[in-house]
Amino acid sequence: MKRSRLIQTEGLPDPEAFGPGAVLVYDRRLTRGLRRFAAWSRRFPARYPVQAGEALKAVDAFPEHARKLVKLAGGFSRRESVLVCAGGGSVGDFGGFAASVLRRGIGLVHIPSTWLAAIDSAHGGKTALNVAGAKNQIGTFYPADAVHLVKNLLFSQPPARAPEALSEFIKVALIDGGPWAKRILTSSLRGADLVWTHLKSAIRAKMRVVEVDPEETGGHRQILNFGHTLGHVLEAHHGLPHGSAVAQGQLFALDWSRIKVGLTDDDHAAFRDLLIRHTGQKPGPGALPRIPRRTFLTLLGRDKKSVALTGVTFVFLKGLGRPVRRRVIHEEVAEQAAAHGWI
Amino acid sequence: MKRSRLIQTEGLPDPEAFGPGAVLVYDRRLTRGLRRFAAWSRRFPARYPVQAGEALKAVDAFPEHARKLVKLAGGFSRRESVLVCAGGGSVGDFGGFAASVLRRGIGLVHIPSTWLAAIDSAHGGKTALNVAGAKNQIGTFYPADAVHLVKNLLFSQPPARAPEALSEFIKVALIDGGPWAKRILTSSLRGADLVWTHLKSAIRAKMRVVEVDPEETGGHRQILNFGHTLGHVLEAHHGLPHGSAVAQGQLFALDWSRIKVGLTDDDHAAFRDLLIRHTGQKPGPGALPRIPRRTFLTLLGRDKKSVALTGVTFVFLKGLGRPVRRRVIHEEVAEQAAAHGWI
Repeated sequence: MKRSRLIQTEGLPDPEAFGPGAVLVYDRRLTRGLRRFAAWSRRFPARYPVQAGEALKAVDAFPEHARKLVKLAGGFSRRESVLVCAGGGSVGDFGGFAASVLRRGIGLVHIPSTWLAAIDSAHGGKTALNVAGAKNQIGTFYPADAVHLVKNLLFSQPPARAPEALSEFIKVALIDGGPWAKRILTSSLRGADLVWTHLKSAIRAKMRVVEVDPEETGGHRQILNFGHTLGHVLEAHHGLPHGSAVAQGQLFALDWSRIKVGLTDDDHAAFRDLLIRHTGQKPGPGALPRIPRRTFLTLLGRDKKSVALTGVTFVFLKGLGRPVRRRVIHEEVAEQAAAHGWI
Repeated sequence: MKRSRLIQTEGLPDPEAFGPGAVLVYDRRLTRGLRRFAAWSRRFPARYPVQAGEALKAVDAFPEHARKLVKLAGGFSRRESVLVCAGGGSVGDFGGFAASVLRRGIGLVHIPSTWLAAIDSAHGGKTALNVAGAKNQIGTFYPADAVHLVKNLLFSQPPARAPEALSEFIKVALIDGGPWAKRILTSSLRGADLVWTHLKSAIRAKMRVVEVDPEETGGHRQILNFGHTLGHVLEAHHGLPHGSAVAQGQLFALDWSRIKVGLTDDDHAAFRDLLIRHTGQKPGPGALPRIPRRTFLTLLGRDKKSVALTGVTFVFLKGLGRPVRRRVIHEEVAEQAAAHGWI
């Protein structure tokens, strides 16, 4: 699979660099968030403002989008055409899909506007549309030619957004364990500053995982599900934001890893502190009501990332950069969750 | 790019071989054409009958198809799911596209029911939908896992269909020039029998061209446009069937190749006779009215396979298996066409 070029800069890239066949697909709210965004967007030969959110990804809306984009890109050859997608996860998923199928694949550049999109969505090549409310049922594997990480744009988000992304950021650090991961364990930086400083490292770390298993045919990519088994249940049942749910899932997985794969007490304490410090999550359900055992088991089974009915693949951590995949039966997860007060 | 397995058999393949997650996408007319087709189709775990034709490829209809196919494939993992597409070109284009984007790509098997689909569409990995009447504006490169060439199914077509496909078949032979191409020059077989005997060779020959340039970024794949420059104009202006138009286009290209690239008189006569004998086309416009010069030039420019405005890439033939790509200006093509009575 092609590796996307990562370009980290202070300001937005020169629109002319994308050539005469560039179409800017962008979250229309960005013109309000960053003052110079509107003026910048007008320098593109063609523009396609969209309303960000899951509705953008509805397959029902796609024919209309396709018609308009074909028109905007018309007159340019397949090789000259490029979609430049500025926005969060939904804009990247939508724009990436569109670029992957327009004329059987035109150029694609991502300019993520959210920390989560920067870490999580704007690489690895997964594009997605939803079908009748079921998320990501349609999509392609289509890595962008380039991903631009733009400080001015990313820092124009409300600072409250950063903790959400930090859950994903720390997850990648824990399973990767490279020098950057060791540095964040002791870094005095917080929030957006921490993410910005190690953003390229985090993205490259995730790319390394994806490259082993680009089209998810093997199991290696499952290590990216660290924290997601419980996380998905909490997201579905309690409606926790994805980042908070996955932070709780990681805290849960760290506890269990001591018993299951021999995570040392020192490592456990260090990783746990790292998560609590940066995501603001207190471990455990707190004031949340217990999930009925039956509901919990149903939600575990529904997790699309665990296909077989006999159990789930749970990702444990043996140490920094040492994720371990183990099949566990649903009841075992439930037992652990009960011990933590979740059910 | 993945190479599709080619499997040539007398009868239809065992539906059970495709596993429990197979969905048969098929031209509903096939249940009338081949008696055992209906019974065979019922042995699939899930079936999706479609109305073949360009309307099937309309992007506007895709959300509804996607919804139904997601439902039919539901309950099976991505790796278990496979679309088995039985039909002509439109069914293959549509089904191939659907398979390429459902859950970011599930299994795909083609069982072409027409000679043209067998030779032309059911390999090379091009899938396609139409946008607002513009053909193939949306699509992917997604080679099938396997292409089944089934004698009973292909021979259940009206024999009149074969000459249409023979134009494409002979084109591939002329540009490939392998031992099979030499054999068809002197073969006493006619129509469907000739195509069936050399079908695998023709498909493999086309695959070899496609493999050099799987995603059409270079120019090598253009040699498959032999006969298409004039062919497209005749198709657009006179409404000639594609096969007849391309046969005329090849006869035109052969004549011009004598002057331009030194095709010998012997080769010229042999190739010309081969085309006339098998496609039933008489060279030249016959009773067709002359195309106004202006219209002709506009249609030439509109040919999507010739992007630049300065001219077109015309494919000549120096000898068997020796295609030559040359840039020619539009006026030069018009001059030749006028000499042949087309304008």
